[in-house]
Amino acid sequence: MNAENFGSSERLVTAAYVRQGAQGRRAHELRLRALLEQGKCPEDGWDESTIELFLHELAIMDSNNFLGNCGVGEREGRVASGLVARRHYRLIHGIGRSGDISAVQPKAAGSSLLNKLTNSVVLDIIKLAGVRTVTNCFVVPMATGMSLTLCFLTLRHKRPKAKYIIWPRIDQKSCFKSMITAGFEPVVIENVLEGDELRTDIEAVEAKIKALGAENILCVHSTTSCFAPRVPDRLEELAVICANYDIPHIVNNAYGVQSSKCMHLIQQGARVGRIDAFVQSLDKNFMVPVGGAIIAGFNESFVQEISKMYPGRASASPSLDVLITLLSLGASGYKQLLKERKEMFSYLSSELKKLADNHNERLLDTPHNPISLAMSLKNLDENNDVAVTQLGSMLFTRQVSGARVVPCGSVQTVNNYTFKGFMSHANDYPCAYLNAASAIGIKKQDVDVFLKRLDKCLKTSKKEKIQI
Amino acid sequence: MNAENFGSSERLVTAAYVRQGAQGRRAHELRLRALLEQGKCPEDGWDESTIELFLHELAIMDSNNFLGNCGVGEREGRVASGLVARRHYRLIHGIGRSGDISAVQPKAAGSSLLNKLTNSVVLDIIKLAGVRTVTNCFVVPMATGMSLTLCFLTLRHKRPKAKYIIWPRIDQKSCFKSMITAGFEPVVIENVLEGDELRTDIEAVEAKIKALGAENILCVHSTTSCFAPRVPDRLEELAVICANYDIPHIVNNAYGVQSSKCMHLIQQGARVGRIDAFVQSLDKNFMVPVGGAIIAGFNESFVQEISKMYPGRASASPSLDVLITLLSLGASGYKQLLKERKEMFSYLSSELKKLADNHNERLLDTPHNPISLAMSLKNLDENNDVAVTQLGSMLFTRQVSGARVVPCGSVQTVNNYTFKGFMSHANDYPCAYLNAASAIGIKKQDVDVFLKRLDKCLKTSKKEKIQI
Amino acid sequence: MNAENFGSSERLVTAAYVRQGAQGRRAHELRLRALLEQGKCPEDGWDESTIELFLHELAIMDSNNFLGNCGVGEREGRVASGLVARRHYRLIHGIGRSGDISAVQPKAAGSSLLNKLTNSVVLDIIKLAGVRTVTNCFVVPMATGMSLTLCFLTLRHKRPKAKYIIWPRIDQKSCFKSMITAGFEPVVIENVLEGDELRTDIEAVEAKIKALGAENILCVHSTTSCFAPRVPDRLEELAVICANYDIPHIVNNAYGVQSSKCMHLIQQGARVGRIDAFVQSLDKNFMVPVGGAIIAGFNESFVQEISKMYPGRASASPSLDVLITLLSLGASGYKQLLKERKEMFSYLSSELKKLADNHNERLLDTPHNPISLAMSLKNLDENNDVAVTQLGSMLFTRQVSGARVVPCGSVQTVNNYTFKGFMSHANDYPCAYLNAASAIGIKKQDVDVFLKRLDKCLKTSKKEKIQI
Amino acid sequence: MNAENFGSSERLVTAAYVRQGAQGRRAHELRLRALLEQGKCPEDGWDESTIELFLHELAIMDSNNFLGNCGVGEREGRVASGLVARRHYRLIHGIGRSGDISAVQPKAAGSSLLNKLTNSVVLDIIKLAGVRTVTNCFVVPMATGMSLTLCFLTLRHKRPKAKYIIWPRIDQKSCFKSMITAGFEPVVIENVLEGDELRTDIEAVEAKIKALGAENILCVHSTTSCFAPRVPDRLEELAVICANYDIPHIVNNAYGVQSSKCMHLIQQGARVGRIDAFVQSLDKNFMVPVGGAIIAGFNESFVQEISKMYPGRASASPSLDVLITLLSLGASGYKQLLKERKEMFSYLSSELKKLADNHNERLLDTPHNPISLAMSLKNLDENNDVAVTQLGSMLFTRQVSGARVVPCGSVQTVNNYTFKGFMSHANDYPCAYLNAASAIGIKKQDVDVFLKRLDKCLKTSKKEKIQI
Repeated sequence: MNAENFGSSERLVTAAYVRQGAQGRRAHELRLRALLEQGKCPEDGWDESTIELFLHELAIMDSNNFLGNCGVGEREGRVASGLVARRHYRLIHGIGRSGDISAVQPKAAGSSLLNKLTNSVVLDIIKLAGVRTVTNCFVVPMATGMSLTLCFLTLRHKRPKAKYIIWPRIDQKSCFKSMITAGFEPVVIENVLEGDELRTDIEAVEAKIKALGAENILCVHSTTSCFAPRVPDRLEELAVICANYDIPHIVNNAYGVQSSKCMHLIQQGARVGRIDAFVQSLDKNFMVPVGGAIIAGFNESFVQEISKMYPGRASASPSLDVLITLLSLGASGYKQLLKERKEMFSYLSSELKKLADNHNERLLDTPHNPISLAMSLKNLDENNDVAVTQLGSMLFTRQVSGARVVPCGSVQTVNNYTFKGFMSHANDYPCAYLNAASAIGIKKQDVDVFLKRLDKCLKTSKKEKIQI
Repeated sequence: MNAENFGSSERLVTAAYVRQGAQGRRAHELRLRALLEQGKCPEDGWDESTIELFLHELAIMDSNNFLGNCGVGEREGRVASGLVARRHYRLIHGIGRSGDISAVQPKAAGSSLLNKLTNSVVLDIIKLAGVRTVTNCFVVPMATGMSLTLCFLTLRHKRPKAKYIIWPRIDQKSCFKSMITAGFEPVVIENVLEGDELRTDIEAVEAKIKALGAENILCVHSTTSCFAPRVPDRLEELAVICANYDIPHIVNNAYGVQSSKCMHLIQQGARVGRIDAFVQSLDKNFMVPVGGAIIAGFNESFVQEISKMYPGRASASPSLDVLITLLSLGASGYKQLLKERKEMFSYLSSELKKLADNHNERLLDTPHNPISLAMSLKNLDENNDVAVTQLGSMLFTRQVSGARVVPCGSVQTVNNYTFKGFMSHANDYPCAYLNAASAIGIKKQDVDVFLKRLDKCLKTSKKEKIQI
Repeated sequence: MNAENFGSSERLVTAAYVRQGAQGRRAHELRLRALLEQGKCPEDGWDESTIELFLHELAIMDSNNFLGNCGVGEREGRVASGLVARRHYRLIHGIGRSGDISAVQPKAAGSSLLNKLTNSVVLDIIKLAGVRTVTNCFVVPMATGMSLTLCFLTLRHKRPKAKYIIWPRIDQKSCFKSMITAGFEPVVIENVLEGDELRTDIEAVEAKIKALGAENILCVHSTTSCFAPRVPDRLEELAVICANYDIPHIVNNAYGVQSSKCMHLIQQGARVGRIDAFVQSLDKNFMVPVGGAIIAGFNESFVQEISKMYPGRASASPSLDVLITLLSLGASGYKQLLKERKEMFSYLSSELKKLADNHNERLLDTPHNPISLAMSLKNLDENNDVAVTQLGSMLFTRQVSGARVVPCGSVQTVNNYTFKGFMSHANDYPCAYLNAASAIGIKKQDVDVFLKRLDKCLKTSKKEKIQI
Repeated sequence: MNAENFGSSERLVTAAYVRQGAQGRRAHELRLRALLEQGKCPEDGWDESTIELFLHELAIMDSNNFLGNCGVGEREGRVASGLVARRHYRLIHGIGRSGDISAVQPKAAGSSLLNKLTNSVVLDIIKLAGVRTVTNCFVVPMATGMSLTLCFLTLRHKRPKAKYIIWPRIDQKSCFKSMITAGFEPVVIENVLEGDELRTDIEAVEAKIKALGAENILCVHSTTSCFAPRVPDRLEELAVICANYDIPHIVNNAYGVQSSKCMHLIQQGARVGRIDAFVQSLDKNFMVPVGGAIIAGFNESFVQEISKMYPGRASASPSLDVLITLLSLGASGYKQLLKERKEMFSYLSSELKKLADNHNERLLDTPHNPISLAMSLKNLDENNDVAVTQLGSMLFTRQVSGARVVPCGSVQTVNNYTFKGFMSHANDYPCAYLNAASAIGIKKQDVDVFLKRLDKCLKTSKKEKIQI
């Protein structure tokens, strides 16, 4: 209500009480003001009431919600279903314009504000999470893989001759496909085994660049967050090589925002060498539904070029989700989640070690991986090769989700490229193993229940093995 | 957003678009302004977006939603469940104060406004529906029956000697109980049969008053809306008698707001004689959930006295429901519903007549009842007395709701009072019958499906009878 | 989805995954099963997803949601506004029948289940909270005061000669009005001062009974929860007197469910003497919106008699709120809230004592009051009698809610009865004071902020006094 | 509730009523069953209650909603904000797997069902809208432009030598960018003027193919729905050429589903020649929020190849929106919308003609364009070249949205390609003009208000011109 309406209310309700109410309203306005002016994630989270009021205010700034609007275009933000209108808070026009996904829409001042604020708040959080010198970013309603594709497609225009992408191997289909879809030939660099860890073969990368010729290489495509025993790529060294050979460098930071280590690697890489863009998942880092990614970088104009490559308007849904989430958590809430994740990682790590010992297995020693752990499954694997995959099914039917069982020697062909030892990031990793991760939002109960069920499954497996 | 926040938005989004958005907001504010200043139901309904914004604005005026509030009382509007908070739009403090259900609460300016506006809008609709000289009213979160009880309890303080309530018979339990619960002795006036209609026996009323002595009578308790073949009481004559003998007159107008005839009776009664209060159901007249009533009257101070009799704060839920409903319908939408109801009454009437003829039955001739119809069930009743109630069950299991089957001669005792011919408003109505009504919100489809199913059931009944 | 639909789903999605999904569904069904069979509050709270599914299931059992229903009655559960339908989960028919608020409705199996389950779960919680021998109860959508009125009106039919209600004084308007509204004459028993506490004058009660004659007394109307320095009535002694003189005993337990002491008093009273019914607020004990109460007792048939006194159907809204809340908290969650309240009471008590000392005031010594505290305002009161009420306003405008400032010697007339020293429960309590309470849901932050603001206000008041 | 729970309910509520309730539930199940078994859009729309129940059922089949789930993966569908969880009905896992956007997810049987059903229902609607021989399709959460890009990227793998895309000119940025982003060189074919219409220059297309060599051409990229005076491409002729030269053919059918003419063109093209895929917007055809498209085709394996090109999981939000919308409209509701659109087109056409005549302008004669109309702005343009764009601003500030003003001779460079006469689809269209369209969901009120405001603006413009 504006001042006039508060005035009118005093006819009906004691003026002192109305003034108290107006005062109450003002506090919400001040929060909103700080957001609009600073463009930062508020330190303390907003309650649902403020968030909903804010979204309501944005919505009535869009032309589809104008009481007197008449629409004679081909896209007027009309909604046939009330259920749909409500779940989007009547923000229907999406984000961006046909020319640029970050652009402002004349028809939709509210949605445009939403888009700007989301990108601004997300940028603030990326800084807070460790990449302090990031210059800009935008949320795009596409998977991490498709967002990497968009980066590669943008680079094509800058490096018309390039055909190859240098890619230290990581066995995750969408990473590989992101290059195939963009129309490039991935040059797979096998990892080297250091202790239990699989790490970037820096020398092989440099050798390959020399062999192929820098101008034929679109970019280096490296990875931070990954399943153990692979560990984040040696970003600093890669970034230096990229700088030296003048090759772009795109980092797949899929679920790395939640780890200060991953973010530190990016920050360091950018400081000492070259990183053009780093891409991260919304759902994996911010506890929102699947479907969005953040493309961020250190060079404002390059990030803008990427945003201008997206042809058409786009769904505002992922932006809306992450904005609601960050406003509701606040910076302090998000930091708290990061802290808890780290603590749970330590807990999972020490408990899984004990369990491994009990079962005559080993927690693989992968100190460079801050999120994922691996426990050997030697005993299971030795006498009976189906036992490992059976363990996987057993865990699945017992409602353990996310525990990944990796047998030895599986072979898979993805888009005509054959991977030996698929899932293990190496042609022949020494043993079968099981992965468990401590990802953002994990609770102690998840860990405890997981360990209990795993213990039970391993015992059952053993018995069955003996019976066989 | 206030002006400052729109200003801040212009840093992020083209100023012209933001101004357009601010303009959009203004239109919603203007609607609200008109409501606050005129206190009338808007002619055209509001869209959901305006209504929700309005409720949101009210909510943040209540202390439980103040961002900086600290509460050290015994009732602070805290809500344990988010589901509950949301479904009440965070309006938690209810309506009224311990002294008066219509009073303003210091802690809750928003809820207080809600209460005042609801009563004001409802008053406007009562006028529009035909009782033009009503002076005030209030919504109370109690059934019609309990609201009548509250009226009687209020009258007790004005007529300490009175023990009796004169009540032209209507066979609906809660009407009768409303007097019993208040602690009075109902004096039942049997109706007279005029043609098929059961009508008020005015002479018996007057005779009874003389017999008991006016000062011993708390009030006359008359009824408008009722099941045919009973018809609305002769309000004018009753009101004149009440005026003559200086006896209060309370009208049970349960679902009469939807009928211009019922409303006209009240208006006329008040014009020529005496009506102290008339009570109507919210759910039956305004298509909201069960649970509220409106107590209205022609004398401001008497209606206030009633509102001051309710000890304690009360649920805002029925007020909220009726306010949302009336704002969303608008006066024009409500009038349209009234119009459609009347048309459906005619349609139901003519179609039911045809069906009755086909089955050798009669649509009873009850021109004074504007809502309910009755069709004789003579053939069914004659040879086999359970057939009538069986027809009721058959209709129930075929998902016909509200069709009421009335056998002859059933006897029921309610609070020690024995009613012969219960349900038929008379000791021995000439025949069994079936009731069907055209109530607000009824659709042509309801009528058509009802007639089809009834036809089928009657045929089945006949066959069964023959087999017996 | 039923088994057939899961089967059909396997055509579209891998059977193993569908079975996993069906398994997931089963877990929700089992929760619901336990509720239906045991009728108890589940130990662990349900998540929103289970609750909403449950409400949805209830709703589609009501005839207004039948896909093939046709309605020709005067009340068909039609809803004009989608906003209204949704906020009630499409449960429109309310609770009870015209004959009995606890009765089952043929048209609304789902709403009827809701009503039964709510009363059953609430009964379970009352036992858990300390009144172990309670036999039944029902939720009624009326304020505590109006619910007390209903109890008195029920008693009238059992004691037709009775005119008086014995009432140990408590200065809260709706308690007093509950008797007036029911048409009885309250016989006020002044409290006795013991130390700082105001306690029941047992001898005066008994003397009054003798003087008036037991048969002329409707009941004793006692109170548990109240503002310090009044403390809960001596229920045991009152209950014994009631038993001895064969007088009904109704307890106003407004916000006493949250205190094990209040509940213990009721349990003891019923054990050693007579308590017919005890009435408690829903909002004050269960953190739901204002508007409902629970009427409970030890004699099943008497409680049923009360429920049969309510004439008409009633709003299901308060029942729905409390059911959602208790299912979402679970018994353990509710007990946790009770525990936290108790801890906060200790904290508030010790901190308020310190603050009082600093300001040369006293925390009144009221060990029998488990919820409310009082701090003297002697210095403020001495030189300047408006200062006390000014302090109240200062706290109000600083968004301190619920802190109640009680000056000496205010006089108020309620329904023709004049109370000296109104608000202080005594004709002349020795000093002015300020109340603060630790009610369910209070947070440490409430206490801390309150103390800080109070400290500031007291300092300001002092300065102003000096200036005067 | 399952059968056991209904059984348990009979302990609490009369068995006959519970059975009636179970019957009510069954009707909802049957609807769902038909959907699961037939995979078609139901003829009659579902009410919100059935839709929400259905979504609820889907959600509890996903592992993130399992009551006993423990998650130790990197993506567990956890949601930080309740607002976000609710607005997605707790369907968090998105659609597809890293390998294929149409694939089933083990963790999320419910979301997988949603995905399958959506694609199936949408396919049914495409057939119903006129492309009867379509074989499969999928919803992708990307703009139409980006979806075209995905098609082109898929074709690249089949035609590794190809560098060009043949593109009959349409002045809409994202169409052009879709090719640029995919890394191809658009070969612009200027349109020919036939009467007022701009139509495909079939001969130029064929000449260009010959000149460049078929194997160097990735595909022909044609367009149906477009702004007048351009009209849909001559799809039949283009399809025949594509078949003859063995060149793929991708159709941009952006908002063509709403027009039987556009759909007929596609059906005919596929019958007589070659169409590989046709892409349409969700928001423009189905009244849902911006952000999704449908990729459809006549060859099942090719459409699958496209779906396998999307690297990563994707947002389920657009799928959810369109499914809700189609279930709520039903096939009959959608057909009704198409019918109304067509009627409004006629109305807009005749009324705009009258208005044009009144202002001495012409409604351009564009019989082949079934959606968009153009009215000349000769008088405005003649004496004063800014007047045309001023008219655009005037309409914008008067809350006319979608009316597009096209001046003569504007030049724009998009990704280094310079378009003369940009916006008019031709280097020098004879006159300036204004576009208005009749798009799905338009109301008579839109047309009437538009005409009134346009009339006013034109009069104002004229006056201003005179003053100048």
